[in-house]
Amino acid sequence: MSAENLVPQGFRSVTARLGLKEESDDFALAFSEVPARSAAVFTRSRFAGPSVILSRDAARGGELRGMVAISRNANVATGEAGSADATEVRERAAVIAGVEPAQLLIASTGVIGIPYPMPTVRAGLAALGREARSLDPGAVAAAIMTTDTHPKTAQRRCGDAVIAGVAKGVGMMEPNMATLLTFFFTDALVPGPELDAIFRRVVDKTFNALSIDTDTSTSDTAAVFANGLAGPVDLAEFEQSLYQVALDLVRAIAADGEGATKLIEVHVTGARDTAQAKRAAKVVVNSPLVKTAVHGADPNWGRVAMALGKLEGDVDIDPARVQIGFDDLVLYPRDQSENLLGRARRCLEKDTVLISVDLGIGTGTFTAYGCDLTEGYVRLNADYTT
Amino acid sequence: MSAENLVPQGFRSVTARLGLKEESDDFALAFSEVPARSAAVFTRSRFAGPSVILSRDAARGGELRGMVAISRNANVATGEAGSADATEVRERAAVIAGVEPAQLLIASTGVIGIPYPMPTVRAGLAALGREARSLDPGAVAAAIMTTDTHPKTAQRRCGDAVIAGVAKGVGMMEPNMATLLTFFFTDALVPGPELDAIFRRVVDKTFNALSIDTDTSTSDTAAVFANGLAGPVDLAEFEQSLYQVALDLVRAIAADGEGATKLIEVHVTGARDTAQAKRAAKVVVNSPLVKTAVHGADPNWGRVAMALGKLEGDVDIDPARVQIGFDDLVLYPRDQSENLLGRARRCLEKDTVLISVDLGIGTGTFTAYGCDLTEGYVRLNADYTT
Repeated sequence: MSAENLVPQGFRSVTARLGLKEESDDFALAFSEVPARSAAVFTRSRFAGPSVILSRDAARGGELRGMVAISRNANVATGEAGSADATEVRERAAVIAGVEPAQLLIASTGVIGIPYPMPTVRAGLAALGREARSLDPGAVAAAIMTTDTHPKTAQRRCGDAVIAGVAKGVGMMEPNMATLLTFFFTDALVPGPELDAIFRRVVDKTFNALSIDTDTSTSDTAAVFANGLAGPVDLAEFEQSLYQVALDLVRAIAADGEGATKLIEVHVTGARDTAQAKRAAKVVVNSPLVKTAVHGADPNWGRVAMALGKLEGDVDIDPARVQIGFDDLVLYPRDQSENLLGRARRCLEKDTVLISVDLGIGTGTFTAYGCDLTEGYVRLNADYTT
Repeated sequence: MSAENLVPQGFRSVTARLGLKEESDDFALAFSEVPARSAAVFTRSRFAGPSVILSRDAARGGELRGMVAISRNANVATGEAGSADATEVRERAAVIAGVEPAQLLIASTGVIGIPYPMPTVRAGLAALGREARSLDPGAVAAAIMTTDTHPKTAQRRCGDAVIAGVAKGVGMMEPNMATLLTFFFTDALVPGPELDAIFRRVVDKTFNALSIDTDTSTSDTAAVFANGLAGPVDLAEFEQSLYQVALDLVRAIAADGEGATKLIEVHVTGARDTAQAKRAAKVVVNSPLVKTAVHGADPNWGRVAMALGKLEGDVDIDPARVQIGFDDLVLYPRDQSENLLGRARRCLEKDTVLISVDLGIGTGTFTAYGCDLTEGYVRLNADYTT
């Protein structure tokens, strides 16, 4: 069975073009045919929109059946009308799925501050009927894209069960608690409290370790739906499989960052604790000067030092104990030699650039994921209009 | 008397090309002929170099006579040898000025991790002799430049006294406690404790309100030297004049940000307090998506809302009470009309773009200064090599 055909049992999906996008699908609905356990995390933005507010409420019971998403329009900062529109879209989707509205998450990304074109949305939804087919992760991933250049899916086996994940997002992206939009479907049987704890740990090491441009979306949503049809699984194995699926998606997202040409992984070791390792990894992966140096394949480890220097609260970070390198080459501390810089430059010419930092304090580690900063990012975002 | 000739009494300067730059001056020394009071603030970077360490120590007594600067090389992360080199350069400069080494700040910006070319520096300094002339702020400002496109100077009268300021810096720039390099020379007579308090208040509203790219230099230094030759001044008037000189420099620096085509001012009102207003102003001025929208003259107020949303700790920020606008046009909340967006677009086509945010909570205000994010920034920093 090829990776593309790895789908969990008992899930269905509908994708369609309602008319928000000009040429491709802009509507996705995916749900379990049978009751499911769920876990979800959302953006912490103070400007979260009605989709997030409705979904956060629905997610509380841990018994969601699935999700509905509209792309190209975030339905954020749209006032009372925006809230009513989100409620109506979810109700209409619930009829198609044959579930209660409160059993569906609703997610929406795209332009902020413009209402949904409701006549178009209503007409499109009315024409759909109840035509859900077996879950098609690729079609769902394509329908939730905004400026993504390709759909992101990933899947793993876990005992008899399958975990399939989809994600979208390329900009406005330093997720906190969740990424833009990502959904995981599995037929594993996982008790609710364990599912929630596992999902939060996995999100923290994957989507919360990702940064494209330090901007945080108002619409970030991550959820897992587990319908149990494949029976019980080993929970440690499930967590590891879910982590691998999430990591595949994170890497795909970082590599597809707006205008990006390279994936950057910043691996921090020797920190006082995980929290400090995370601060150090993110301050490096977020530095515009590090990101442009990677873009130019310039082994400018001094910019990594500069970025670490910004952690002014971390008074135990001592330049005399820090090591900085690319791949397994240590560039600081070490005498400069043209030869070493030549080898470092070749590390930076790869599609995936690994920056290694050892703080020399303790045993805390963390890896952050990001991408280079390019003229393409600027062009895309200077031209993308309201 | 033209602005160019406004210089305080009793200051001298020497500028020269030692050979770190190919065509222009890379060495500046400026000092008071007579004892002076001083105040200074420095980067908080954990990777501060020997220049900052020596200077911080020297500044403690509040009796500095002046500063010496070398450009194109930061002398940071250069170990024991770098520390010895900084000490030697300051000693040689003190001989030229006829002062004690501990009466001079030393400042250095440029590439990190490469030692000074000491044989070249020594030969250049030996050739200088004691040839200091009357303070030439323009020459000092030119000699401390790295990637700046032009020297930054500003000056104001204050009673019988004059305040002259110089500054440099275009990238790696979100100063904390100070900007990259900026020095103020005045013949006003200001008692030491008052000078220190006034200087810190002024820096907080000007250089600490500036952000080019969220990166913090390892070498930031700001200092004022007051030799008292013009006699006492009204302290409130002095603070206002110093503020104006500093603000002129901040605006010049923001407008000359690497690759920048526009100055951005984010004016926040209605905050709970000044600290909240500052957080809000900086989160907007630092957002890559706001900066690219300004570059594209796109009145995308939704990105300002998104940026404000990142202040997740500020739970009293309520989207229902927030106002967002450009110049005096309020775009949120308000019905979208093409006409209004057209007018907003014209606000964004100006050289200085004013983004206004009212949080609707209290009376706190703050203005932050920055610039747009352009392909030029990326090109400059992808190509600028170690």
